[in-house]
Amino acid sequence: MTLTDTTRATENEERLTTLGASMRRALDGPFADAREAGRSTFPAADLLRDPAADIEQSRQWTLDRLLFLNANGLGSVGVPAGANAVSDPLSAVMTFELHAHGDLSVTIKSGVQFGLFGGAVTNLGTAWHHETYLPDITSMRLLGGFAMTELGHGSDVASIETTITYLPDTQEFEVNSPSPSAAKAYIGNAARDGHMAAVFGQLYVGGVCQGVHTILVPLRSDDGDVLPNVSIGDQGHKGGLLGVDNGTILFDHVRVPRRMLLDRYGGVDEQGNYQSAIDNPNRRFFTMLGTLVRGRVCIAAGGGIAARRALSIATRYSLKRRQFPEAGRQGGVLLLDYLVHQRRLLPRIARSYALGFAQNELTEMLVHIQGGGEHTEVDQRELESRAAGLKAVTTRFANETVQEAREACGGAGYLSENRLTDLRSDVDVFATFEGDNTVLMQLVTKSLLSDYKRAWGELDRSGVVRETGRVVSETMMERTAASIMLDKLAASARRRPEESSLTDSSWHALMFEERERHSLESLARRFKAASQSKGDSFEKFNALGDHVQFVARAHMERVALEAFVAGIAACKDADARQVLKTLCTLFALGSIDTDRAWFLEHNRISGSNAKAIGGTLNDLCRTLRPNALALVEGMGIPEQWLRAAILED
Amino acid sequence: MTLTDTTRATENEERLTTLGASMRRALDGPFADAREAGRSTFPAADLLRDPAADIEQSRQWTLDRLLFLNANGLGSVGVPAGANAVSDPLSAVMTFELHAHGDLSVTIKSGVQFGLFGGAVTNLGTAWHHETYLPDITSMRLLGGFAMTELGHGSDVASIETTITYLPDTQEFEVNSPSPSAAKAYIGNAARDGHMAAVFGQLYVGGVCQGVHTILVPLRSDDGDVLPNVSIGDQGHKGGLLGVDNGTILFDHVRVPRRMLLDRYGGVDEQGNYQSAIDNPNRRFFTMLGTLVRGRVCIAAGGGIAARRALSIATRYSLKRRQFPEAGRQGGVLLLDYLVHQRRLLPRIARSYALGFAQNELTEMLVHIQGGGEHTEVDQRELESRAAGLKAVTTRFANETVQEAREACGGAGYLSENRLTDLRSDVDVFATFEGDNTVLMQLVTKSLLSDYKRAWGELDRSGVVRETGRVVSETMMERTAASIMLDKLAASARRRPEESSLTDSSWHALMFEERERHSLESLARRFKAASQSKGDSFEKFNALGDHVQFVARAHMERVALEAFVAGIAACKDADARQVLKTLCTLFALGSIDTDRAWFLEHNRISGSNAKAIGGTLNDLCRTLRPNALALVEGMGIPEQWLRAAILED
Repeated sequence: MTLTDTTRATENEERLTTLGASMRRALDGPFADAREAGRSTFPAADLLRDPAADIEQSRQWTLDRLLFLNANGLGSVGVPAGANAVSDPLSAVMTFELHAHGDLSVTIKSGVQFGLFGGAVTNLGTAWHHETYLPDITSMRLLGGFAMTELGHGSDVASIETTITYLPDTQEFEVNSPSPSAAKAYIGNAARDGHMAAVFGQLYVGGVCQGVHTILVPLRSDDGDVLPNVSIGDQGHKGGLLGVDNGTILFDHVRVPRRMLLDRYGGVDEQGNYQSAIDNPNRRFFTMLGTLVRGRVCIAAGGGIAARRALSIATRYSLKRRQFPEAGRQGGVLLLDYLVHQRRLLPRIARSYALGFAQNELTEMLVHIQGGGEHTEVDQRELESRAAGLKAVTTRFANETVQEAREACGGAGYLSENRLTDLRSDVDVFATFEGDNTVLMQLVTKSLLSDYKRAWGELDRSGVVRETGRVVSETMMERTAASIMLDKLAASARRRPEESSLTDSSWHALMFEERERHSLESLARRFKAASQSKGDSFEKFNALGDHVQFVARAHMERVALEAFVAGIAACKDADARQVLKTLCTLFALGSIDTDRAWFLEHNRISGSNAKAIGGTLNDLCRTLRPNALALVEGMGIPEQWLRAAILED
Repeated sequence: MTLTDTTRATENEERLTTLGASMRRALDGPFADAREAGRSTFPAADLLRDPAADIEQSRQWTLDRLLFLNANGLGSVGVPAGANAVSDPLSAVMTFELHAHGDLSVTIKSGVQFGLFGGAVTNLGTAWHHETYLPDITSMRLLGGFAMTELGHGSDVASIETTITYLPDTQEFEVNSPSPSAAKAYIGNAARDGHMAAVFGQLYVGGVCQGVHTILVPLRSDDGDVLPNVSIGDQGHKGGLLGVDNGTILFDHVRVPRRMLLDRYGGVDEQGNYQSAIDNPNRRFFTMLGTLVRGRVCIAAGGGIAARRALSIATRYSLKRRQFPEAGRQGGVLLLDYLVHQRRLLPRIARSYALGFAQNELTEMLVHIQGGGEHTEVDQRELESRAAGLKAVTTRFANETVQEAREACGGAGYLSENRLTDLRSDVDVFATFEGDNTVLMQLVTKSLLSDYKRAWGELDRSGVVRETGRVVSETMMERTAASIMLDKLAASARRRPEESSLTDSSWHALMFEERERHSLESLARRFKAASQSKGDSFEKFNALGDHVQFVARAHMERVALEAFVAGIAACKDADARQVLKTLCTLFALGSIDTDRAWFLEHNRISGSNAKAIGGTLNDLCRTLRPNALALVEGMGIPEQWLRAAILED
């Protein structure tokens, strides 16, 4: 089935205010053309699933919708279709984003099929795998799962129990789940549709464990029957994403031919010897996982779009809905004229822009590195850390924001026809899959600390303190154009002895840098002290847990501000730039407000200035209020795609 | 159908640690016997709905379950069964609480039928209504709705459009919905089961509007057909509570006999004259609404129990689940041994206790006032304000907490079989119904300010400041035994010039009182200044919106601490008392931590002390960690009622 142009036209026609159109171009940034093309051609007629559909109906609808999108060139985009085709990470991410404007089960099923299963074959496999499987994967003739997580091992991939044992006599691998906790769990495409899985397990060759590797294992016959020695469990009803058929998989000594091992980073030759270009098993493990970074980039993007959809619904509603009579306000006061309502929505819109600009930068990094651009291992690690952090920050924001939007729409927000509750249910698990957010934030800080350690070597404590300024700004904050811009801003604030105005962007830059720098430096000192002290080593580092989370958050806030500042600089339209500046001020001051206790405790702000922040945030909301519609349009979700009954008529 | 004792036994048998049992007795407080009796007899066999059930199955199951509970003496408890029976508010609240341990659709349907519909007949009706309808309401032969909210008027009941017009010629009332926005909306029991509704509308007698009154209007015939001139819409799928049949109702000049008006506070005599014992229409309106306060008390209780259920699941899981290997920790580290995990769960458990103690006090106030105890109008208003505030604070806490628990259980938390996602979906709307939380917090502050105004009369600004101490402590904080205890604590801290230890309970009391006192006092001054200044009067007060929310929160935090301190004093068991003290410290210091910027800005704490709070919270979590199971048992949810698959085996 393909789509006629007439259907498309009605769903894709948009009338925007001039300012809204400029805001959107600014936020779309380097991807403005690609995103605009997507919005104008996406088949939006059957965008969302019936909220009352049961599990089986949801799964079938989701599969059908994905088949339809794929047939219309919006599924496997960017995934190479065979050995000689090339990856196109930009198109892959743009397509994922576009999917996220619609039903999130479709989005995630697409991510499982093309991003994870297809991605594993592409990135961990070699020519034979590409030739043999990619054509069927991209055409969806072969649906597959990504079987990494185990019941007993959610965040701890290195500890998975599944074994992949080489049998030299038959040149086969035996895949086995040695215990119930080794069951693969939460695997999309497992419960119903998948015929194969990329299975992660500990590779044993000649009795020696070579660490985690990935192997393709058939799950079902052509008729759809589960194959012998494979046991599949249906994980049934979930908190959301009902269209994704998550299941468990257990392998009972399942044999597959030798070439099914995805052997790009390590394999077994015909003589039965383990071969890898990477000697260090730890480095090999992280290299393999590192190729899968696109999943996190996509989930961050999807979370950000979910938040924008929710904010679009709640803000548009607040521009229609009146409540409580007031002299001179026909029909009552518009919800968005209440300051408390502005404070619920506008700072979140500001944050949506900030995270959106950061997402653009992340996508650029990904496209550069996975699109064949020159890069070092440090760049790759920076990409991974950035993806982990932005995924955690954005999905947390998405969950809180969809809920706030739901409540801001009152009882209407609770009706499924207004789309917020399903969005909330679906985006919930974004906080958990592709990495638990708490664990991801630890990864961010760990990466910052290892930069720190490497750069500082053996400097003693006083040396550390003295060198802080130089090292943090030059080594730890990667030298992008955006970071240079932020540094310059901060430097200009640093030169002025007196405290600046609360709305001064250079003061914001300084505060953001100081928050990151100081918290990281003090954490590094505490780590060093802990490592030199006596006592239970787990408990010593465990005690720093909340500090670790704070540093990651401070880092990501700085990343977001940096991206916002760069996004403003790149904006060509003067009116939009002016509004973006106010929006950035609201974001920055809101972030400082959240941590204003920290700034007070560290003498970065006076009590009287801190007290004035609330009033300044109110002023900023009042300033932005007249542009609310344009701010929403700028977030890039076509109004008619929101499909919320409260916005109709 | 009635229940055999054998079924009950297996579901109601509990084995608790000694400390857990003592903690539970303490938190059950004055209602320990009633709650224990409830837990030991509640028919828990069929406690929760199948998460995969569709709307129709959910509604049928919910109705059947409620019929079953009612037949077993656990439905209409406390609602008088006729004109000569008496209300028993204590039993009514205890029964609602017990329901909230199970499926929340059943709980809410019960609340609609007995609390709202039955409550309106009981509290707003007179002998004829009681005689005629209460027997059928309590037996569930007559199911009814509570038709207050209109599509166009959610939080603004005074502005509802439905008219109730007296027709002297036929001694009838004509009930009419003059516009689409007058449609009654979100009405439970409307879409499917209800045969009658208590309908709120503007009463017109002889062309004069007498304000909002309530009238009984039949909706369906005995056969279940919707009656002529009544239009009912099914609001279909919702974000949760699928078992409750919410719908819209429109009336097209529907006529009912004169006596159907619930005329306790105002009615029309045989001569067609309006009669009311309350002359002031405003006072009459608030008197009528005031009788319905029990709904908010119950929703607060239900929200608190939902949070406890979620924390029970997540904490019990964290005592089983291990992740990441660590020397000396067989099978990996227990989740609850991670400090970041402790910080996610233990402070919320502490807050659950605080809110639970506050709920006990609120229930005592309700039982006193509605159970025939001597009271003034001020007491009634205090009850309403307290109910509004605790409903808002507890339901917000519930939503955040169930989500935190969901995430703390990782992917398992997202499976419906682990019960957190349905709990989250169901409790979501608790933030909105029975009063939007933001609006309720405004009510709390408004009530505090009107006390303020009344007490201070015409004192000028300097007078206000000078008198603050006396007035706030003696007038605005009602003189309960609990508040006297808190005052004494605070006074002892005030006498000491040097800053106390962060764990000192008298210092906590002082900080909580200062936060409320100072924020309220400064708000009062800003209100006075606004009322005397020029400019748009809406905007002047609108600008204080965030301050208004802060004051209400500060007030409710103080109420919770006060209740916690009193609860500890009432605890007879020395071990439990000791643990409760630590738990209270964690609650109090956590609350101060949340607002530590405020305390810094107002010079109530030094920067170095503020900085030390995080570490002290960590220490408190570590201290409480060994008692985690007892803390959970104390929250009062029997383990086998949690029904979470991850806790089984």
